[in-house]
Amino acid sequence: MKRVKLIVSYDGTNYCGWQIQPNGVTIEEMLNRHLSDLLQEPIKVIGASRTDSGVHALGNVAVFDTNARMPADKISYAMNTRLPSDIRIIDSAEVATDFHPRKCHTVKTYEYCIYNRRFPDPTKRLYSYFTYYKLDVEAMRKAASYLVGTHDFKSLSTWKEEVPDTVRTIYSIDITKEDHLIRIRIRGNGFLYNMVRIIAGTLMQAGQGVIQPQDMKRILEAKDRGAAGPTARPEGLTLVSIEYPDEKQQEALIFQEK
Amino acid sequence: MKRVKLIVSYDGTNYCGWQIQPNGVTIEEMLNRHLSDLLQEPIKVIGASRTDSGVHALGNVAVFDTNARMPADKISYAMNTRLPSDIRIIDSAEVATDFHPRKCHTVKTYEYCIYNRRFPDPTKRLYSYFTYYKLDVEAMRKAASYLVGTHDFKSLSTWKEEVPDTVRTIYSIDITKEDHLIRIRIRGNGFLYNMVRIIAGTLMQAGQGVIQPQDMKRILEAKDRGAAGPTARPEGLTLVSIEYPDEKQQEALIFQEK
Repeated sequence: MKRVKLIVSYDGTNYCGWQIQPNGVTIEEMLNRHLSDLLQEPIKVIGASRTDSGVHALGNVAVFDTNARMPADKISYAMNTRLPSDIRIIDSAEVATDFHPRKCHTVKTYEYCIYNRRFPDPTKRLYSYFTYYKLDVEAMRKAASYLVGTHDFKSLSTWKEEVPDTVRTIYSIDITKEDHLIRIRIRGNGFLYNMVRIIAGTLMQAGQGVIQPQDMKRILEAKDRGAAGPTARPEGLTLVSIEYPDEKQQEALIFQEK
Repeated sequence: MKRVKLIVSYDGTNYCGWQIQPNGVTIEEMLNRHLSDLLQEPIKVIGASRTDSGVHALGNVAVFDTNARMPADKISYAMNTRLPSDIRIIDSAEVATDFHPRKCHTVKTYEYCIYNRRFPDPTKRLYSYFTYYKLDVEAMRKAASYLVGTHDFKSLSTWKEEVPDTVRTIYSIDITKEDHLIRIRIRGNGFLYNMVRIIAGTLMQAGQGVIQPQDMKRILEAKDRGAAGPTARPEGLTLVSIEYPDEKQQEALIFQEK
């Protein structure tokens, strides 16, 4: 028996998110189905991040246990000949049998992408949120600066299940603009349900002047979802990477070239 | 009666190219259908570039004549509420009644995009060509330098219909690489059938070392399609813009902001 870690990229457009559910096809279901076919035994993956319907990933992480003899590093190649073109395994490796992708200290990086122009660009529509309201990037940066650090993010999350602790740490929020694309890149030690999309929706309000950057302080202190802006649409969101700083040999650095 | 010019962006993934044909839905057909509905008279557009099946455009140009009273600049907005999200009119304006988008001196800019990494990125697959063969961008640049200028491009085009003159001028070929994406941007006064895709396919051979940069001279001189590389796949190609330098007031500069 060995435990195998996968790094999974996907275009979330045509999936009902990561987690198996009765109403549509999910990434977890596709992985279980094709891994079970490939390895000729029932496989159930455990995912690091259960991304929502329509959200994309460049480097989500999943693990599974198998008795199959196929070397772990060959599984990525074999799976990519079976999976549809909107899902790819970009790495597979054997890890310690007690490695659990959600019960480790992680650094997650998300990117929210906004196309800000008079008219949408059809070739950007699946991977960004379009708005014609001109956004002031400097105001968005100022607003974002209030969120960096350790805070109670209750106002900036949707209640889904009882979470004992809504305090999280954001290490950085970098906002860049190039050719009408505004990218909000957020790194943190964990994110509550819908937190990145609500942060993006609230920063867009700051960019439009609906709220002032310093209002972010009041929003955090309210500890009330109603104080923040709307949940931004899923197609703009991509889970870029998940790093495991305490597990050096298992580090999920997707930008590491082989 | 007035003549209206449209600048049209589209994601070509789900269309059988620009030109109306019996086997599938085309961009021309979609524009005719929705313009006729909107203006309540039969409309037939004339396109500047009849892009192939699967090829994208940020700034293709089309004109049509109409007796409708709707101001030309309002037509873009009205059309965008009717068109599917993979086609957008990014500008509409009245032009001289004798303006013909193919019978003018034009400068066309195309971009061919290659994703060059060990595994594909599913969120890039619709708008780039994936190859895991490591491409030497410097060799591609050297090979491209032989094509800039005025040459007979017969070797680098597919015979489709009798073309009396296969001499064209390429003003520039810029090749950039950023985050595994190689972009070949070509500006010229006109392009033969499949010419940009055959140039891309041949430059990729130079990038792989299958041919040497200086072989481009021999390929041009052969005046034989068999001398050049393969026709690169359509999804990597985007028609970026068409400029009309002699028609200042009608200039189709898509990057011009309003």
